[in-house]
Amino acid sequence: MTSTALLTDQYELTMISAALAAGTADRQCVFEVFARRLPDGRRYGVVAGTGRLLDELADFRFGAAELEAVRDLVDEPTAQWLADYRFRGDIDGYSEGELFFPNSPILSVRGGFAEAVVLETLILSVLNHDSAVASAAARMVSAAAGRPVIEMGSRRTHEQAAVAAARAAYLCGVGATSNLEAARTYGVPSAGTAAHSWTLSFTGDDGPDERAAFAAQIARHGVGTTLLVDTYDITAGVRNAIEVAGPELYAVRIDSGDLGVLARQVRQQLDDLGATGTKIVVSGDLDEYAIASLRAEPVDIYGVGTALVTGSGAPTAGMVYKLVEVDGLPVAKRSSQKESLGGAKRAVRAARDTGTVLEEILYRDGEPAPQPRAGENLRPLQIPLIRDGKRVDDVPTLAQSRELLARGLVSLPWEGLGLSHGDPAIGTRYLSRPGA
Amino acid sequence: MTSTALLTDQYELTMISAALAAGTADRQCVFEVFARRLPDGRRYGVVAGTGRLLDELADFRFGAAELEAVRDLVDEPTAQWLADYRFRGDIDGYSEGELFFPNSPILSVRGGFAEAVVLETLILSVLNHDSAVASAAARMVSAAAGRPVIEMGSRRTHEQAAVAAARAAYLCGVGATSNLEAARTYGVPSAGTAAHSWTLSFTGDDGPDERAAFAAQIARHGVGTTLLVDTYDITAGVRNAIEVAGPELYAVRIDSGDLGVLARQVRQQLDDLGATGTKIVVSGDLDEYAIASLRAEPVDIYGVGTALVTGSGAPTAGMVYKLVEVDGLPVAKRSSQKESLGGAKRAVRAARDTGTVLEEILYRDGEPAPQPRAGENLRPLQIPLIRDGKRVDDVPTLAQSRELLARGLVSLPWEGLGLSHGDPAIGTRYLSRPGA
Repeated sequence: MTSTALLTDQYELTMISAALAAGTADRQCVFEVFARRLPDGRRYGVVAGTGRLLDELADFRFGAAELEAVRDLVDEPTAQWLADYRFRGDIDGYSEGELFFPNSPILSVRGGFAEAVVLETLILSVLNHDSAVASAAARMVSAAAGRPVIEMGSRRTHEQAAVAAARAAYLCGVGATSNLEAARTYGVPSAGTAAHSWTLSFTGDDGPDERAAFAAQIARHGVGTTLLVDTYDITAGVRNAIEVAGPELYAVRIDSGDLGVLARQVRQQLDDLGATGTKIVVSGDLDEYAIASLRAEPVDIYGVGTALVTGSGAPTAGMVYKLVEVDGLPVAKRSSQKESLGGAKRAVRAARDTGTVLEEILYRDGEPAPQPRAGENLRPLQIPLIRDGKRVDDVPTLAQSRELLARGLVSLPWEGLGLSHGDPAIGTRYLSRPGA
Repeated sequence: MTSTALLTDQYELTMISAALAAGTADRQCVFEVFARRLPDGRRYGVVAGTGRLLDELADFRFGAAELEAVRDLVDEPTAQWLADYRFRGDIDGYSEGELFFPNSPILSVRGGFAEAVVLETLILSVLNHDSAVASAAARMVSAAAGRPVIEMGSRRTHEQAAVAAARAAYLCGVGATSNLEAARTYGVPSAGTAAHSWTLSFTGDDGPDERAAFAAQIARHGVGTTLLVDTYDITAGVRNAIEVAGPELYAVRIDSGDLGVLARQVRQQLDDLGATGTKIVVSGDLDEYAIASLRAEPVDIYGVGTALVTGSGAPTAGMVYKLVEVDGLPVAKRSSQKESLGGAKRAVRAARDTGTVLEEILYRDGEPAPQPRAGENLRPLQIPLIRDGKRVDDVPTLAQSRELLARGLVSLPWEGLGLSHGDPAIGTRYLSRPGA
């Protein structure tokens, strides 16, 4: 086990230390994770990272090495408390793959002040990163309108973030990743055949030899591979590809240029060469808008990289971890701009019986749940994740979360899937204003 | 040792497998890392991550677990090759902390095709992430004009990326981080005192009790701490802070609202209360522009988060890893838009003898180095990092890289430090066009 305990901001420990001295460390608290708003113009967000978070929480322990590292920061009682630490409270949350909207209480952590506050940084890091990637990936999958999407952005982000990004993308319906660690750790299907350097490496004294590169790739991997045809001249590349591989070649990839124009030309050329079944993979700085703009073109598979792993303009999901209840009393920050509603909250999503969602309703935990109107139903959004410090048995798997999200996207009003800037697809309503 | 070998794109392995079968795996190659352009409007980039990369390259080995994970992807000769793999070639590069510009050859990897291509993903992940963060952090430190900056963005990015981001920020002159793992692993000074939840946790049946929260913090940490004064009313918060701590209080922090207006009000109030030495820390969605806009205000310390760890609009540095030479022959992709210059390159930076840099000059490796003009000097930019697979002894330390960057920023023409959009601070010139 590699401890995750130092993936934490220093102020969590200084607060714990002061709380132990003041006798307030065990005050029963509820912290909630939520985003005040969606990134500019986005219609929905996707909760991601919960499964990863639960794994990392299990390793959130202060061993000898971690205690040594914080020795100068904490006093003896705090060191002792940290040495004994494991989270013993309860965590509820939206399932991974659930849609979220502004103020959705995505995660609720119940426990003593000290044991709950110390998890703040890790919880936010995981959820902010993974949800940012997922919220972008879901739009890309929507824009692809059924055509497969492959995630190949590892090189554009931190090497460990890349693994998490591949997982989040898979959650959203991306079909495969280039990342081998994501394949090993999370079982995401992996994909990938060759880079431009492959073709260039066949340069000899007589100059470039694209045919030799293609022939060597086919010799090892067979015609079920994808040949990258834009290292030199694309038209020559396609001709070389089919001459070497024959019309049974699985696919060609285009990684640069005006992808729409090129896809049409290449499709025509492939068809003329009898390679009517050979697919066209396009890649190269694709985002959801570029994917959508290619919808009318003969593209079979999209490879996405930078935009996906960096959240397509919104690299963090803007989630915060706020103390909302202390010993049963609602609490909230009152100063300008960042007000929030105190009190632990429950959330349900209202939908027509036909399936289309209408709104999200929050109500104070402990108050009666709202009742559905005729022709509508209410689905509770929070599920138990941890009870008395232990992970519950039936936390949804990644595969289940993938299905949940696919259903969730179908449930949005049609304009909610639009790529254009707009308001959240549904509103969030407080049934009672907690603390009011 | 945790292997880093699977932080790799699948196509590296399919290429190696095909190269082994084709007999081209050992062709002597040079790969170069460079960015075709800087992010929109940026004047310079900062190389970061090199030290981390060298650590991770040492762990790039395929152990039994890694081989098992890729078993279905590779044939027996490839599996054997991977099992024996360690990089045995040479790597040169710009020092960490060096400035870079479009086409600067930041890293040059020499070795057999297979042994060099397999490092592509890891090299790019580390350099793209860390350089993106550093390139933003350097601008923030410049904008702060000597006032200390604290990095507190861990919660806004992937939990491991947060550690690397804290390191990159420190490289750029950021004085401290909230991240405890960065403090442990890289010796970055850590900082942090309390969150809003601390103050809120002192809510009782009689309502909020900010004074009790402040008193408890002072009781444990003394008056050398920072009190967060904007949980409720800021004016009352400042009054409470000084009443509880006395005028010797180290600092107050403001995390929301119009920071400029509030800083002035709080400064006046602190001075009126006799707390003339109490510092003002501001935080809350600060980027380089917000920092600059506060230059005339009585702010003592900036806390930066989201914008820093996400590269302030440019979350990846756009670096690529391109094959430029095969068995001594220059190679380059020729198709549209992504052309680059073949041939291994050397780089020097020309500066006036007064120190101001003038341009970066690239020339083909093996050709005579350019000579300085009168009143100017040329500094070679590449240093050896790995020789015959072994890290050289005198790779600059993080502290040395920090000094290098500080000197580098001073050497820029004055407009190069401007925050406004513009061209790169200096041009990059090819002394000879390699391959021409």
